[in-house]
Amino acid sequence: MTSVSSTPPVPPHGVHSEVGRLRKVLVCSPGLAHERLTPSNSDDLLFDDVMWVEAAQRDHLDFVNKLTNRGVEVVELHDLLAQTMDIAEARAWLLDRRVVPNRVGLGLVEGARAYLDSLPSRELSRLLIGGLSTADLPADFRTGYLSLARESLGAGDYLLPPLPNTLYTRDTTCWIYGGVTLNPLFWPARHDETMLMQTIYGFHPDYAPSRVWWGDAEQDWARATVEGGDVMPVGNGVVLIGMSERTSRQGITSLAKSLFDAGAAERVVVAAMPQLRAAMHLDTVFTFADRDLVTVHPAFVDGIRAVSLRPSDAAPGIEVTDEGDTPFVDVVAEAMGLPRLRVVETAGDVYASERQQWDSGNNAVALEPGVVFTYDRNTLTNAALRQAGVEVITIVGAELGRGRGGGHCMTCPIVRDPLD
Amino acid sequence: MTSVSSTPPVPPHGVHSEVGRLRKVLVCSPGLAHERLTPSNSDDLLFDDVMWVEAAQRDHLDFVNKLTNRGVEVVELHDLLAQTMDIAEARAWLLDRRVVPNRVGLGLVEGARAYLDSLPSRELSRLLIGGLSTADLPADFRTGYLSLARESLGAGDYLLPPLPNTLYTRDTTCWIYGGVTLNPLFWPARHDETMLMQTIYGFHPDYAPSRVWWGDAEQDWARATVEGGDVMPVGNGVVLIGMSERTSRQGITSLAKSLFDAGAAERVVVAAMPQLRAAMHLDTVFTFADRDLVTVHPAFVDGIRAVSLRPSDAAPGIEVTDEGDTPFVDVVAEAMGLPRLRVVETAGDVYASERQQWDSGNNAVALEPGVVFTYDRNTLTNAALRQAGVEVITIVGAELGRGRGGGHCMTCPIVRDPLD
Amino acid sequence: MTSVSSTPPVPPHGVHSEVGRLRKVLVCSPGLAHERLTPSNSDDLLFDDVMWVEAAQRDHLDFVNKLTNRGVEVVELHDLLAQTMDIAEARAWLLDRRVVPNRVGLGLVEGARAYLDSLPSRELSRLLIGGLSTADLPADFRTGYLSLARESLGAGDYLLPPLPNTLYTRDTTCWIYGGVTLNPLFWPARHDETMLMQTIYGFHPDYAPSRVWWGDAEQDWARATVEGGDVMPVGNGVVLIGMSERTSRQGITSLAKSLFDAGAAERVVVAAMPQLRAAMHLDTVFTFADRDLVTVHPAFVDGIRAVSLRPSDAAPGIEVTDEGDTPFVDVVAEAMGLPRLRVVETAGDVYASERQQWDSGNNAVALEPGVVFTYDRNTLTNAALRQAGVEVITIVGAELGRGRGGGHCMTCPIVRDPLD
Amino acid sequence: MTSVSSTPPVPPHGVHSEVGRLRKVLVCSPGLAHERLTPSNSDDLLFDDVMWVEAAQRDHLDFVNKLTNRGVEVVELHDLLAQTMDIAEARAWLLDRRVVPNRVGLGLVEGARAYLDSLPSRELSRLLIGGLSTADLPADFRTGYLSLARESLGAGDYLLPPLPNTLYTRDTTCWIYGGVTLNPLFWPARHDETMLMQTIYGFHPDYAPSRVWWGDAEQDWARATVEGGDVMPVGNGVVLIGMSERTSRQGITSLAKSLFDAGAAERVVVAAMPQLRAAMHLDTVFTFADRDLVTVHPAFVDGIRAVSLRPSDAAPGIEVTDEGDTPFVDVVAEAMGLPRLRVVETAGDVYASERQQWDSGNNAVALEPGVVFTYDRNTLTNAALRQAGVEVITIVGAELGRGRGGGHCMTCPIVRDPLD
Repeated sequence: MTSVSSTPPVPPHGVHSEVGRLRKVLVCSPGLAHERLTPSNSDDLLFDDVMWVEAAQRDHLDFVNKLTNRGVEVVELHDLLAQTMDIAEARAWLLDRRVVPNRVGLGLVEGARAYLDSLPSRELSRLLIGGLSTADLPADFRTGYLSLARESLGAGDYLLPPLPNTLYTRDTTCWIYGGVTLNPLFWPARHDETMLMQTIYGFHPDYAPSRVWWGDAEQDWARATVEGGDVMPVGNGVVLIGMSERTSRQGITSLAKSLFDAGAAERVVVAAMPQLRAAMHLDTVFTFADRDLVTVHPAFVDGIRAVSLRPSDAAPGIEVTDEGDTPFVDVVAEAMGLPRLRVVETAGDVYASERQQWDSGNNAVALEPGVVFTYDRNTLTNAALRQAGVEVITIVGAELGRGRGGGHCMTCPIVRDPLD
Repeated sequence: MTSVSSTPPVPPHGVHSEVGRLRKVLVCSPGLAHERLTPSNSDDLLFDDVMWVEAAQRDHLDFVNKLTNRGVEVVELHDLLAQTMDIAEARAWLLDRRVVPNRVGLGLVEGARAYLDSLPSRELSRLLIGGLSTADLPADFRTGYLSLARESLGAGDYLLPPLPNTLYTRDTTCWIYGGVTLNPLFWPARHDETMLMQTIYGFHPDYAPSRVWWGDAEQDWARATVEGGDVMPVGNGVVLIGMSERTSRQGITSLAKSLFDAGAAERVVVAAMPQLRAAMHLDTVFTFADRDLVTVHPAFVDGIRAVSLRPSDAAPGIEVTDEGDTPFVDVVAEAMGLPRLRVVETAGDVYASERQQWDSGNNAVALEPGVVFTYDRNTLTNAALRQAGVEVITIVGAELGRGRGGGHCMTCPIVRDPLD
Repeated sequence: MTSVSSTPPVPPHGVHSEVGRLRKVLVCSPGLAHERLTPSNSDDLLFDDVMWVEAAQRDHLDFVNKLTNRGVEVVELHDLLAQTMDIAEARAWLLDRRVVPNRVGLGLVEGARAYLDSLPSRELSRLLIGGLSTADLPADFRTGYLSLARESLGAGDYLLPPLPNTLYTRDTTCWIYGGVTLNPLFWPARHDETMLMQTIYGFHPDYAPSRVWWGDAEQDWARATVEGGDVMPVGNGVVLIGMSERTSRQGITSLAKSLFDAGAAERVVVAAMPQLRAAMHLDTVFTFADRDLVTVHPAFVDGIRAVSLRPSDAAPGIEVTDEGDTPFVDVVAEAMGLPRLRVVETAGDVYASERQQWDSGNNAVALEPGVVFTYDRNTLTNAALRQAGVEVITIVGAELGRGRGGGHCMTCPIVRDPLD
Repeated sequence: MTSVSSTPPVPPHGVHSEVGRLRKVLVCSPGLAHERLTPSNSDDLLFDDVMWVEAAQRDHLDFVNKLTNRGVEVVELHDLLAQTMDIAEARAWLLDRRVVPNRVGLGLVEGARAYLDSLPSRELSRLLIGGLSTADLPADFRTGYLSLARESLGAGDYLLPPLPNTLYTRDTTCWIYGGVTLNPLFWPARHDETMLMQTIYGFHPDYAPSRVWWGDAEQDWARATVEGGDVMPVGNGVVLIGMSERTSRQGITSLAKSLFDAGAAERVVVAAMPQLRAAMHLDTVFTFADRDLVTVHPAFVDGIRAVSLRPSDAAPGIEVTDEGDTPFVDVVAEAMGLPRLRVVETAGDVYASERQQWDSGNNAVALEPGVVFTYDRNTLTNAALRQAGVEVITIVGAELGRGRGGGHCMTCPIVRDPLD
């Protein structure tokens, strides 16, 4: 494996804006985890609908090709994890934390560990993301304890749970300017995703040198949760963070303090989302398409209240400013040093607008200023973006969109240029 | 506080059966936590319905009086916790773990801690169980950070979350013969309950000497969860444990091994519950009313499969025996050394039977062999129990039952005699 | 049956206000229909929770006694229906419409009809309200078709469906000044309730002379639905009607036209409710407690927009006036010719207010100006009403409230004085 | 319109089997009704998910082309209805029944009728299926009543409701051998679909001569409901009918009697479905792929109990035979005069099988013996069918399947040959 040499060049990883040139990005292909999804377990696995996995893989590959063709280096999670599992120390570190009695159950630890240890790194990576059910365990590794597992309820028969939300790499880690965060996610069923990323950032030679601002999957973060779909390093030392069902006040202030202490940011603009489930993450209703152009879903964004956080000498180190009734979009413009932001709303009549927000119509991810990826199905909003001068490259969303995430959710930028 | 003297007599705590003479029991009165319940937050707080708190308190007090009048020593959680908070070291230990940035949020730690430290133990106990919302914080302890808290979603405005399920003391800790467990509960929103009990068992002079078989609220138990409603030390060295949505295979085997290693039990009979949400805990469908008499809800109990666990010399120390198609009730009789168990089913026609199980009709708790407490509303099942020779003492269930728990759920026996 | 004599005095039935002296009222005791409710069928039967029927009956009887003791004549639906079933023509009319193949199923019509015809009127009345399941049919009346019924899903085994919402007599018929309406209810599962009332108003000597403004249970009303919980004849020729999930624009305009054509009212004030499920009927958030005093739940009532309807010479006979941003309460005061309305809001903090609205805290029914009945559990709102000078008589709500209706919902005034 | 000549040849319409040569079929293209669907109204409109309408139209057109290319005459509902609306008498008949105060609301009848009367037949057909909202009404036809409509809740603003389930033409009417049924559907929101079909069968020259066995959209069928997805005329005088949530015992016996009285069938085999919502219609778990080959979802079909109905001289004309424990598939084989049926189960492991049933994997429609259409996404079940010698032609299901119906649901055969 040539990419994992002994003296790796430290890559200048860092994300310095939302729309500057995207140079390197992490994605995760659909796979085994999605083949495990059924109508009856999708709630427990936190996925909205069942998808046709082969078609989703084809559409995801097409998205990756379009990124690559436009000069973006794309790294894929199964690959990264497999490369990391080639490192004996990393493999042991992760399995020591995942194949334990509290997770796989007493009496199955030895068999499960022996089986996983016997696997090539690529297959191990596939199971770490896709899940290992008791039924998958080969006969050689089975014990009488399986009779108990067989009677377990629901996901109880998993030794390693499937992680279908890995498809949305945006949430688990975020690059904020020159460093990264290892996010404590809201749902316990997603905590394993952060653990996988932590193994990569701990051991993979390309990523281990990274500066970690905040987060640690071995720690209990209680109510301090952050998901990357709520985090946007927009440039000018500013970070937007949506305060939503999944990104809490406790998580935001903890992250903000870490950023301020490290001198990584000068201001955090908190977007306090209205109390509606459909407004899951900030990036489901608000994303950037150009230096001064955002696409927003007005039904939600009009209800956002802004609160600014800045470093303070007084303990605990944050100054809090309620921005009052100033519209969120105006606060963002001011924070970025722009006279104003141009706004493209979810297009069409009242029906079409609601349908397109649901179908990730406002979940654009920029390749460079004025060039974005969005789902093909949001034809009206895409047309409105084009009319505003934006080049819109489409992703086939029929399957990929069924977990209720779009291009922004499916990408974790690792290198993105600042705006000049 | 006379009850917390410097040289406490160590009480011979221990629960040696399900129906032997009950001598000491832990309960928790309804209170502030239930005043916080509303139709819109009850899902998040894991409580089925809103209750009239004053009436619930009256009915709970009546239940306590009936226990006391029959010679049971009743200890109440608010009292125990207040007594424990009188111990400076205990107070610091708990607040150090609860009033931290990840829970109350940066910028509010100092104010919240100062406020809580200023409180008498009884009032502190009330808030630890009932919750502390940002709105409760007196002006002296407020900071600019509250503007952020005010915009938070749902339960985000709590500095200490309300714990309405404390009403069901059965789940959090279980005495199993001569020692106790500090259970890792299924829902993260209930983990604080175990932490409160751990403070009591760590510092209160009456309880600190107790032998703890298993459990530690400071540890991450992942998928190893146990709730006391599934645990029954029936005597003869046998423990019944329901494997349900909330008590997992991982939790059961971990607990069983601890019991076997300590010589505390010789056999665990696992009741693998059918995959139905209504069958939350074993004690919602199966409880004891006399030495050889159980009340069961056949629609669920008929679907239980039994698996026996016994100590083994071979690692990891447990021998697993699938009991095949033998009915659960017969396996229990055999394990207890009885020729058979008499069974009183939820009574009435198909409608009445389903209604009464829902209203905790099978959730009896025994005072002594042949004497049980149940809710007044399950008149048909109560009549059937009486016809079987059981003395049935009723609890008013109109309010107390709204969280879907009955007499068995509301009691955590601390001293119960063995059957002779 | 002495009360049904051959030359009945036509009673001067009529409801001329919301708070004038209540002289005669229709209620319906809990009974067989509620004994059929289970957690699994309550959704289909449109009832929120299971109730303890004996206790509900006791509490309902207490409510009736309090009404009687204060001089109100109380008539009960089972009684009225039994008296009506004593009239052969009425019995035939109703059974001809209910015991038909499309309802009870081919092959069961003859047996069911023969069985019902064999019953005394009181028992027939009990089954018409409480339901007749296939299992209830005595052996003499059974046929091979029952094997099919036994395999049917859900409520398929009912020959006559249970009607638990009869408890809320308010919805089915409304007296509006000197005449009555036979309301087309929103849910098809409740249409039978209107058919029962229509039989009484068609045949019972005390009621057959009544003037019917609107409604006919034999007709298909499509989307024109009205439920009495939304209708308030407040006096001064004015009727308030909530436009809600259950009372439609089509129903309101149709009813308004009938009232205007008959000269029964001069103005309808439509209360356009906000789009929230909890705001089921106008009387769940707004009722009168005195001539100029209302109790309201501000979280909903603040969102009501008022539209006035008045007679017009131009076809189709209604003039529509949007009241713009004038608060609903002010529009009502103006319509009633009052300078203003005094307002008692659901009392307590944000939790208590939401809890009490849920528990029918704003669902008061007046005995006379300044005297109302409400549930005991809404202690804070009751205290606020008392502080405003209102005499509050309480009803035990522990069981009766489980269908989410209070005193106003459980009463259908038949004679109520005008305000002077 | 040349296709509606004055002396039309009466086509020999009739469906004589489930797998004989399909010669003529009714479908309905996705359209305006689906553009109205949003996440917040889809429950009320009885559709599972939002679809991308343009893509669904493309995929539906491709399905139609494949049918046409294989020699099937395809008629489309918008076309048929437009042709029918060209007939003045038919147009008046339908609008007289749909544009009435109880549906569109007083004050809007004249404007709506005038507007609809002004439209060409094709545009009228589009709105009858797709819905007419108050916002669609041109200014010339607006009145003050619209201010009331604007405040209405949910679907209250529709003058004609959208009918997205027209996509599934299978349910509304069924050809059973030589005649047709006009089915009373379970949900009131779908009753308009039957009214549209009744207009076509009442006036369109190609269809008006049809023999109608049963059903009438002007009548109230109460609990006697039948949906075509449950009805299969398999040949040999036998009709299979699923007794499900939506097709009731009352509907089945009423239909059976009509068929027996007309001599149209000799036996109805009732498939009593297990009480599970996922088992909506018989054709979601059981369809024919060849003369003696069925594709079934065993998790549901194993739970079906069969009851046979045959003509009887004794009133009311049906003999009922419970088939006891004989498996449904065996009863069907015997009824069809076959030694046995070959069975292809939903393929794959436990996850894949549940996923494919959900994605209409067992909802095949036959072109001729051994040739079926199914969705592309059920690759494993399709492969299993191919291995059994069946030619499987695929339909793109990414959008069309979102309402939870497949090829069988989307087709209403009008002419299908008997099996020899």
